Amino acid sequence: MPDFLKILALALAVAGSTALAEGVLVLQTDFGTRDGAVAAMKGVAVGVSPRLVIHDLSHENTPFDIWEAAYRLRQAAPYWPAGTVFVSVVDPGVGTRRKPVVVRTRSGHLFVGPDNGTWTLIAEDLGVTAVREIDVTRHHRAGSEKSHTFHGRDVFSLVGAGLASGRIEFVDVGPELAADVVRLAYARPQLEGKVLIGSIPVLDPQFGNVWTNLDEAWFQKLEPREGDRFRVTVSKAEQAVYAGEMPYVRTFGDVPKGAPLLYLNSLMHVAIALNMDSFVRKHGVSSGAEWSVRVEKLTP
Amino acid sequence: MPDFLKILALALAVAGSTALAEGVLVLQTDFGTRDGAVAAMKGVAVGVSPRLVIHDLSHENTPFDIWEAAYRLRQAAPYWPAGTVFVSVVDPGVGTRRKPVVVRTRSGHLFVGPDNGTWTLIAEDLGVTAVREIDVTRHHRAGSEKSHTFHGRDVFSLVGAGLASGRIEFVDVGPELAADVVRLAYARPQLEGKVLIGSIPVLDPQFGNVWTNLDEAWFQKLEPREGDRFRVTVSKAEQAVYAGEMPYVRTFGDVPKGAPLLYLNSLMHVAIALNMDSFVRKHGVSSGAEWSVRVEKLTP
Amino acid sequence: MPDFLKILALALAVAGSTALAEGVLVLQTDFGTRDGAVAAMKGVAVGVSPRLVIHDLSHENTPFDIWEAAYRLRQAAPYWPAGTVFVSVVDPGVGTRRKPVVVRTRSGHLFVGPDNGTWTLIAEDLGVTAVREIDVTRHHRAGSEKSHTFHGRDVFSLVGAGLASGRIEFVDVGPELAADVVRLAYARPQLEGKVLIGSIPVLDPQFGNVWTNLDEAWFQKLEPREGDRFRVTVSKAEQAVYAGEMPYVRTFGDVPKGAPLLYLNSLMHVAIALNMDSFVRKHGVSSGAEWSVRVEKLTP
Repeated sequence: MPDFLKILALALAVAGSTALAEGVLVLQTDFGTRDGAVAAMKGVAVGVSPRLVIHDLSHENTPFDIWEAAYRLRQAAPYWPAGTVFVSVVDPGVGTRRKPVVVRTRSGHLFVGPDNGTWTLIAEDLGVTAVREIDVTRHHRAGSEKSHTFHGRDVFSLVGAGLASGRIEFVDVGPELAADVVRLAYARPQLEGKVLIGSIPVLDPQFGNVWTNLDEAWFQKLEPREGDRFRVTVSKAEQAVYAGEMPYVRTFGDVPKGAPLLYLNSLMHVAIALNMDSFVRKHGVSSGAEWSVRVEKLTP
Repeated sequence: MPDFLKILALALAVAGSTALAEGVLVLQTDFGTRDGAVAAMKGVAVGVSPRLVIHDLSHENTPFDIWEAAYRLRQAAPYWPAGTVFVSVVDPGVGTRRKPVVVRTRSGHLFVGPDNGTWTLIAEDLGVTAVREIDVTRHHRAGSEKSHTFHGRDVFSLVGAGLASGRIEFVDVGPELAADVVRLAYARPQLEGKVLIGSIPVLDPQFGNVWTNLDEAWFQKLEPREGDRFRVTVSKAEQAVYAGEMPYVRTFGDVPKGAPLLYLNSLMHVAIALNMDSFVRKHGVSSGAEWSVRVEKLTP
Repeated sequence: MPDFLKILALALAVAGSTALAEGVLVLQTDFGTRDGAVAAMKGVAVGVSPRLVIHDLSHENTPFDIWEAAYRLRQAAPYWPAGTVFVSVVDPGVGTRRKPVVVRTRSGHLFVGPDNGTWTLIAEDLGVTAVREIDVTRHHRAGSEKSHTFHGRDVFSLVGAGLASGRIEFVDVGPELAADVVRLAYARPQLEGKVLIGSIPVLDPQFGNVWTNLDEAWFQKLEPREGDRFRVTVSKAEQAVYAGEMPYVRTFGDVPKGAPLLYLNSLMHVAIALNMDSFVRKHGVSSGAEWSVRVEKLTP
């Protein structure tokens, strides 16, 4: 191979890797997009490096709802490549004692934000390998010394962009903590005889489907086959809000329009829905600590 | 020219074209942005190539409304450069028989998603040159074999990102189909004497303007001149909901605040509006199969 | 250093700078994201250069509300790096006499859009150094000659992308104007004895906090210390809507859940809020010309 071809190959390889090294930053907040707060965060990140690849998870998280933020991270983070840096700012305690942290997971992702329960579910699903507290005396936007209410802009976006672009190393974030995070308490599934009991951690808000915490492994305890019929009861504070029968099917179109179905959702958890209608609205169902679901296979 | 300059020029040319070759991916869904579904789709695409240029058309399409999706593609796609890949997932039949396809248009765009009517209007406006069915046994996200309800993430985003980045060639998507798509039926404009009769395919939801299917060629049959006055009747199921007179003007500011106007919208179709007010809300107008509009030029 | 290393270094330097030179474009409109209008604007920009870094400020500006647009630019623009190009299209007068302009500020930002008051606050905060009127006969999307209602797509996005990518120089935009912009009138803060009187230019819509125009310099006239108590009165058209006492604190968590607080917001302006509740909803407060606020330090 002539020399100039070797040079060319090397130049392109380095140019390519440099370009890729700019990294990927994904943002989640409860700020909404009606005002300029999210844009201010992005401006800070672009100021760190205009070549960062910046995407949104969602900014429409219910204000102050840390549990929802935790669930949305579980729903989206595993589908991003290793090395992606997530900044999540649902932070009712901004300016108080909750620690600003960076969490590294076994999957090779980094998570930046307050340690207030936000990392509960990704810790469970992806595994925490290291946690560092952000030293905010060193890592804050120049000129932000007197502002105490917008760490999303002044600390977290800056640190996330620094990590994603390689301008900050994980070890330079601040002191190492124990490799664990604050965990929100929540109900685990149970099996009572032949009845699975689960909770409703979150809804599929756009389509009005009800998502449960019964994952595939729990569901398999009922030995389900496609087409089997199930009795499903949804309760709020132990009071039944809905009780009915429905088949376990692969997908919505397997039942008539408007009919109920039980299926495994995109996270492979048991979910219940109406084909092309809103189960949530029709039956007045919501999510959270008071809500539970019982699933029983009907004998054939 | 010295050798090193030649090498340099070549290196830069290749580097430049490589960078550009990463391609442009535009996403449309009815998923909303409150949960993590769109972000999961983007994670899959970024995993294919972090250098893809990814933009949103809209994710607030009315759930299950294929017609609206078709119209929004018509509104936006022609303004994107040739080579842009659109993924559109408004897919009430996910998991059922509708075919997953990639459509190539005469304009050099690619469209990825279910063949359920979504491509009706871009087929008309841009011209279909080739269609291939996606071979989902070969093209699906690793690990998604058991998930049947989220083709947006597991198939369409993956294929769209592969096509945009050049990692998949169009001919490798799957078997070639006839160069046509499933078309939604809809009413065409008519001329009855001196009255144009059209439909209301969609609204301008933000400003409350009423958009018709009467394009410039149809409108010219009335020989309109700026300033001419028109009688406009809007009906639902043949019952008049609004009847009134208004001038044909170039732009909103040509009439007083609150006054009605007839104009050619940004797609060069006849539209009716109130200057700085909502025609839709004030007169209770909506869009869809039941709605029609009559436009008649008043003799001077 | 061997020749090939010199060549390599040069190639990389040029490749790197070329990539960075593509520039940053930030968009603000009142179009919403339910339809394809914003996506059409982005398509035009990507057509100018697919390597532009394009971000959104917000598209959910209240329709026609120029003041809100002006405020959101103030809130976000200073956090973006010099060289960023902002396109803002809240343009009730599209197609009429308001001038399409590009504004250059002392901070090194460029602002593209109608000169209708949108630039009032960034002119004040960032300083205008030059203004040029866009020559729309030269700068419009090919084929848009007959469309008069969508300058966001046909003129402003095109010019913004041209400036951001370096394809258009500022001096080639069109004729130079006086280095000033149309300014919206608004009430300035006042000090009456020991009472600060301010206005409510905008709300923090997501959290229901009330933002005032009393900046840190005005607030210092009351010689506040953290923990001091203040009497706050909010009035609409001189009628008190709320009157109460609250402490001046650094952050929300310094008062109990539901309690009122006075703090400096992320723009270092006086704001009032309830910890983890909505002051706006609870007390029926809004923003705009009719609303005023009185802030008085209580003697210890």
